[in-house]
Amino acid sequence: MSSPKAPSFAALRRFCEQAFQNLGMSAEQAGIGADVLATTDSWGVYTHGSKCLAGYLRRLKLGGLRPGGQPHVVAEGGAWATVDGDSSLGLVTSVYAMRTAIRKAKEQGIAFVGVRNSCHFGAAGYYTWLAAREGLIGISMANDIPSVAAPGSRRAITGSNPLSYAIPAGRHPPMFLDMSTATVAGGKVYAARGRGERIPDTWLLDSEGRPTSDPSIYPESATLQPAAGHKGYGIALLIECLSGILTGAQFTWRVGSWMWDDGTKPTHHGAAFVVVDTATMMPPAQFAQRMEELVDEIHQAPKADGVSRLYVPGEMEWEKHHSALKHGIPLPEDVIASLQKAADLAGLTLDTLWQ
Amino acid sequence: MSSPKAPSFAALRRFCEQAFQNLGMSAEQAGIGADVLATTDSWGVYTHGSKCLAGYLRRLKLGGLRPGGQPHVVAEGGAWATVDGDSSLGLVTSVYAMRTAIRKAKEQGIAFVGVRNSCHFGAAGYYTWLAAREGLIGISMANDIPSVAAPGSRRAITGSNPLSYAIPAGRHPPMFLDMSTATVAGGKVYAARGRGERIPDTWLLDSEGRPTSDPSIYPESATLQPAAGHKGYGIALLIECLSGILTGAQFTWRVGSWMWDDGTKPTHHGAAFVVVDTATMMPPAQFAQRMEELVDEIHQAPKADGVSRLYVPGEMEWEKHHSALKHGIPLPEDVIASLQKAADLAGLTLDTLWQ
Repeated sequence: MSSPKAPSFAALRRFCEQAFQNLGMSAEQAGIGADVLATTDSWGVYTHGSKCLAGYLRRLKLGGLRPGGQPHVVAEGGAWATVDGDSSLGLVTSVYAMRTAIRKAKEQGIAFVGVRNSCHFGAAGYYTWLAAREGLIGISMANDIPSVAAPGSRRAITGSNPLSYAIPAGRHPPMFLDMSTATVAGGKVYAARGRGERIPDTWLLDSEGRPTSDPSIYPESATLQPAAGHKGYGIALLIECLSGILTGAQFTWRVGSWMWDDGTKPTHHGAAFVVVDTATMMPPAQFAQRMEELVDEIHQAPKADGVSRLYVPGEMEWEKHHSALKHGIPLPEDVIASLQKAADLAGLTLDTLWQ
Repeated sequence: MSSPKAPSFAALRRFCEQAFQNLGMSAEQAGIGADVLATTDSWGVYTHGSKCLAGYLRRLKLGGLRPGGQPHVVAEGGAWATVDGDSSLGLVTSVYAMRTAIRKAKEQGIAFVGVRNSCHFGAAGYYTWLAAREGLIGISMANDIPSVAAPGSRRAITGSNPLSYAIPAGRHPPMFLDMSTATVAGGKVYAARGRGERIPDTWLLDSEGRPTSDPSIYPESATLQPAAGHKGYGIALLIECLSGILTGAQFTWRVGSWMWDDGTKPTHHGAAFVVVDTATMMPPAQFAQRMEELVDEIHQAPKADGVSRLYVPGEMEWEKHHSALKHGIPLPEDVIASLQKAADLAGLTLDTLWQ
């Protein structure tokens, strides 16, 4: 039996799966969505894991998310495809799109799959991990409602537009990054707001465009700051163009909020997936050896005073993941509270989490 | 006649072209290299324009760069190719690789071209601009000798690994970003060092890993700081993997310095190019209209106090470019001084710049 606050991966996954099914999703789609959420929590990315379940269930109930939606390819060519998510769960659409990109990349070396009519992206890293598990490089990105300022703007210009990659690294876990192009993801501000904490003044601008450390005004009258100023802003716009413009999705202010807007309407998020099949271009053993050398070199590099270890991107997440599989997932209070709402929406109890 | 400090685009291009030819490069390759350098200066990116000419000429003379080298495809498939630069000028190899990527993207929707046996990349933005000129989205990146710390490291881990994109935007100039994944590019530190100026303490760490505002210790005993900490570090590693690991180029400390290392030896830089043919996926008029709406929306967004204008990435560069074509390129003193060295190496005089 798990700790009351640390359900096993299997129990959390099963709970999410049952909840999705109780709202009318097929067993297959429910399993996909649940796997995304439980895996995300296992990485310690609690802002994008099962904390989101209640919001998804609410939309499934109201119809803005279609429980019977079927993501499908609406146009394709040699190394690309455009997927319409059919207003199904964004996690399901994203997995479908990434699998399409993986299949095409194995044929062509690289593939691009754009997505329209999706919803909240969840953790960008889940999809790139799918590619890395099969030995390919995965890259994923998505747009979202504007929440991040441009240098000099008074209100939000882009979403916090996440970017992830995963690269197989031989005997090491995949090199793995999942980042917001804002200084921090909005989810971190919500988490601080929920816990009643102050935040660093590099995260938000108030309604006058001044730095603030008060998370309670977000998102109503605050915007996130872009990471590294014009650099984060510039990358966010690249993501907006690939995910939103090129796919036929909505972009910037035309995207709906999956949390705040009318739950009966689709949100029309966009997303984009790029996969590179390294085995097409280099013998797998050679690629693995070179990646291992790069990782080993970082581990062995001189450290600044007081630093005991240099991390390769993803190492923290993989260590949490392995600990979670062994000892359970130590869910924070705000996630537990949100899961209770999900249980209520799905006619379940949280008891099964601790069994 | 141009101002003594502002040669015309044509005169600067001709000077560079003649210099390359005098060092044994073919007329075609000399023209390509000169076009990259003069265009880069026209954007105001003086750290990566004709200031680099003298260094290239020195390597061409010593043999580390091969005046008769011919970049060529060594392996390819549907939507990808690997190019060997044959130790020719990095600018020439990069243009060849980007053209290969453009051709393949028009067939497949997207293409990846990796490069090995290249040298200094020059301005990443020149290559993406080549794609945008033809209506495609261009993305370019390259590795370089380590000069940027990882969070917690005492010495450099990655190069300042540049990333550029260019996206056609209808009646607007292409959306266009050319950034280092360090807080600033090393070239900006060299420029400050050359001018004897102090720098912000967010740019460099000293040999103990402490922030410093003294550019004179770079690169001998200082490292650049990554942009936005682990985010810039993470993106730099993605670039290292795509440009260095996957291409068969050298990576991190095995890359040679084009400025400081033995000029008789190749540097074995890597690079990578991705092109997306938007016309394959969406009618060009529709893509253009959506891009125009995005740009217009940014221009019209509310501004913070004291801000008169919000910039879309690239607008500053395009305005400098158009001014440069009209009024000449206002080269800084350090560039003029470097061009004098180039003139000496090539048996030319600077007089032709002002004619």
